[in-house]
Amino acid sequence: MKTPIILVNFKIYNEISGARGLELAKICEDVSSKTGVNISIAPQIIDLSYISEKVSIPIFSQHVDNIKPGSGTGKTTLEGIKAAKAVGTLINHSENRLKIADIDSIINRCRELGLISVVCTNTISVSKAVAMFNPTFIAVEPPELIGGDISVTDADPGIVKNTVKTIRDIAPDVKVLCGAGVKNGKDVKKAIELGAEGVLLASGVTKAKNPREVLEDLAKGAMK
Amino acid sequence: MKTPIILVNFKIYNEISGARGLELAKICEDVSSKTGVNISIAPQIIDLSYISEKVSIPIFSQHVDNIKPGSGTGKTTLEGIKAAKAVGTLINHSENRLKIADIDSIINRCRELGLISVVCTNTISVSKAVAMFNPTFIAVEPPELIGGDISVTDADPGIVKNTVKTIRDIAPDVKVLCGAGVKNGKDVKKAIELGAEGVLLASGVTKAKNPREVLEDLAKGAMK
Amino acid sequence: MKTPIILVNFKIYNEISGARGLELAKICEDVSSKTGVNISIAPQIIDLSYISEKVSIPIFSQHVDNIKPGSGTGKTTLEGIKAAKAVGTLINHSENRLKIADIDSIINRCRELGLISVVCTNTISVSKAVAMFNPTFIAVEPPELIGGDISVTDADPGIVKNTVKTIRDIAPDVKVLCGAGVKNGKDVKKAIELGAEGVLLASGVTKAKNPREVLEDLAKGAMK
Amino acid sequence: MKTPIILVNFKIYNEISGARGLELAKICEDVSSKTGVNISIAPQIIDLSYISEKVSIPIFSQHVDNIKPGSGTGKTTLEGIKAAKAVGTLINHSENRLKIADIDSIINRCRELGLISVVCTNTISVSKAVAMFNPTFIAVEPPELIGGDISVTDADPGIVKNTVKTIRDIAPDVKVLCGAGVKNGKDVKKAIELGAEGVLLASGVTKAKNPREVLEDLAKGAMK
Repeated sequence: MKTPIILVNFKIYNEISGARGLELAKICEDVSSKTGVNISIAPQIIDLSYISEKVSIPIFSQHVDNIKPGSGTGKTTLEGIKAAKAVGTLINHSENRLKIADIDSIINRCRELGLISVVCTNTISVSKAVAMFNPTFIAVEPPELIGGDISVTDADPGIVKNTVKTIRDIAPDVKVLCGAGVKNGKDVKKAIELGAEGVLLASGVTKAKNPREVLEDLAKGAMK
Repeated sequence: MKTPIILVNFKIYNEISGARGLELAKICEDVSSKTGVNISIAPQIIDLSYISEKVSIPIFSQHVDNIKPGSGTGKTTLEGIKAAKAVGTLINHSENRLKIADIDSIINRCRELGLISVVCTNTISVSKAVAMFNPTFIAVEPPELIGGDISVTDADPGIVKNTVKTIRDIAPDVKVLCGAGVKNGKDVKKAIELGAEGVLLASGVTKAKNPREVLEDLAKGAMK
Repeated sequence: MKTPIILVNFKIYNEISGARGLELAKICEDVSSKTGVNISIAPQIIDLSYISEKVSIPIFSQHVDNIKPGSGTGKTTLEGIKAAKAVGTLINHSENRLKIADIDSIINRCRELGLISVVCTNTISVSKAVAMFNPTFIAVEPPELIGGDISVTDADPGIVKNTVKTIRDIAPDVKVLCGAGVKNGKDVKKAIELGAEGVLLASGVTKAKNPREVLEDLAKGAMK
Repeated sequence: MKTPIILVNFKIYNEISGARGLELAKICEDVSSKTGVNISIAPQIIDLSYISEKVSIPIFSQHVDNIKPGSGTGKTTLEGIKAAKAVGTLINHSENRLKIADIDSIINRCRELGLISVVCTNTISVSKAVAMFNPTFIAVEPPELIGGDISVTDADPGIVKNTVKTIRDIAPDVKVLCGAGVKNGKDVKKAIELGAEGVLLASGVTKAKNPREVLEDLAKGAMK
């Protein structure tokens, strides 16, 4: 997966419901194609296959259950995510926290299936613990900053820098994203300067009056 | 919604993963169109919008969370289900049980949004309790028979008959489906004779060697 | 169980931790003994057997899991509650909501074991649904009023009156308690006038500067 | 805390309900006193304060919720555990798994409150992750062996040895217990030889015909 990465989590905002989700996905694809920056998306879970079929940028699931195909009405499997041609999944998002044994198992199964694991964490110590599982990415998001107006890169640059340094010492192959409050190219640039390989963001794009402009600005921040 | 209804729950079986899910949906659509019987489907949740776009039979979500659009990474909203042009949702399936206050709230919001609520229940007393919420359908499925070889209509016809009678006394507008072990047209016919307005089934179709034949047989059971 | 009942939920307030929990239990016992009013208590779950051994007023568990004795580290069973000589349990408190199938099963097993079931509900429709399970008590507590300064009997007397009337029509043996914001004898009196057989309260007693005075006042409200 | 430790989890077995729980606690105390071996217990959660008052061996809670004193009907707090004069708590037992962010927070708060944290783990990688949180003890229990007839020290000595070695490299202060299938003094001796500082066991004691004999044998295994 090419880095830096701008990973846009659509959450379940009204603004991305139905046709508007696909529209935003298309804009992400277009900006990615024009700027050459890796813009990946995590659409609403019910739209996963639908959007995956229609755009060519990397698609992530917002969540996965630690369950194998079979019974499990309403659950989401890694096998299903792969069959939908998504490239991976968010794991343990602050709005969908998982048990530690399930995180271990899901990351192992991602590896077996060739899927990218992006594990969200809330503190440096949780990041260190998750590093032991060797996921593809750790996305550190201080919960108190999520959905807010101030980027983690301004509010708490130390957590980004320390997470990057600490993870690098423990598990040099694990890449770090940072999230919470990220809104513009300046925030992305700062994140990269602090050692992150990209950002995870949501409302900054999904609720923007002009998402294309915001995405172009974010992409600019990701370019050399 | 036209009754009797044959509602096929795809669950998360390997057999309906990726392209095979759409294929099965198309077969359901085709048999429904040829027989005139209402065959509705509940695809894997990640395939909801994808399959909804491509077939014209009624689509149900397998699950919904009691959450409004907004934050809620990985959750499923009624508003999202509606925007995906699904007609309703399963609620409280035995593999995804819900809290009583959430069932109340979800059914109320289904009504406001014009969505069909299909609440799964495990006993006559739970069916009676749920009847108080006036959902569109109650689907009674004795958990010990789910996924088994013997249809509830043979193993425990009393639970179907009594559920129908009891619900009718309490909430005459609520329709009853029965599920668990339903496999063929004879089971469907028996369910209708016992007073049900259709069946909810899964493995009987999804794991069949020849799903088309099974569906044709089921549809025959639903015809006068 | 003698009614009217004043049922004091200790929750997990600091004010009832350790020795103070027992002290409050003793005050409840003393006021009950002096006034002849049924004052029952639901101590912190870790104090259940400890307080049950030392006071003679009725003790309730704050919660129970739908699990039988056996494995289940950290869970609470009805059999354990009974062996601790508690008389029953709160079920489905707004801070510990349960799945509908579990509520059904727990109430049935309370009946088998001779335990009193007090099911908390948040709306009239949930109360009606729960009435179908025939618990001993339904305690209606509008969640938005819990822990607040205005008693449900003032803020929403209609919900009490309607719950009582509706339950009486459905399940005449089920008794109704009301809760949320109840603080003094006047509130208790009003609750009884509205048809309730008592109140469920917490902070009004546990956080009072002088719990004895508050309890005496509450008891006065419960006397003819 | 003196090691080696024999930590007896009473679970919610019928055999330890009511008076029998206290009786077993007294036997544990007696054998500990006569042998000088640290036998600690985790009684049923509703018996925590009750048993803690009556015996002088170290008491652990079977579970704790990541919640502070306040509202939280039916929950268990660290502050409550401390006020009950228990010395610590099991965390993340396989029958009561926790989210990773909650484990981090609970261990930190144990440290602040001077409580002993015993985190149960199921694999070497989960043990490594938990080691990052620096709990007092990690108790490794392969879930497939829990409650079985073969001790983990026989069935999978490698997991004990490797856990000890791996933890020692990461967090030298963290002590390792092993559990699952442990039944006699030979198993305890083997556990200590493999580097563990004690064992966590349940049915081997609680379901024994003669728990005193079993405890004496276990203690013998823990002596030089």
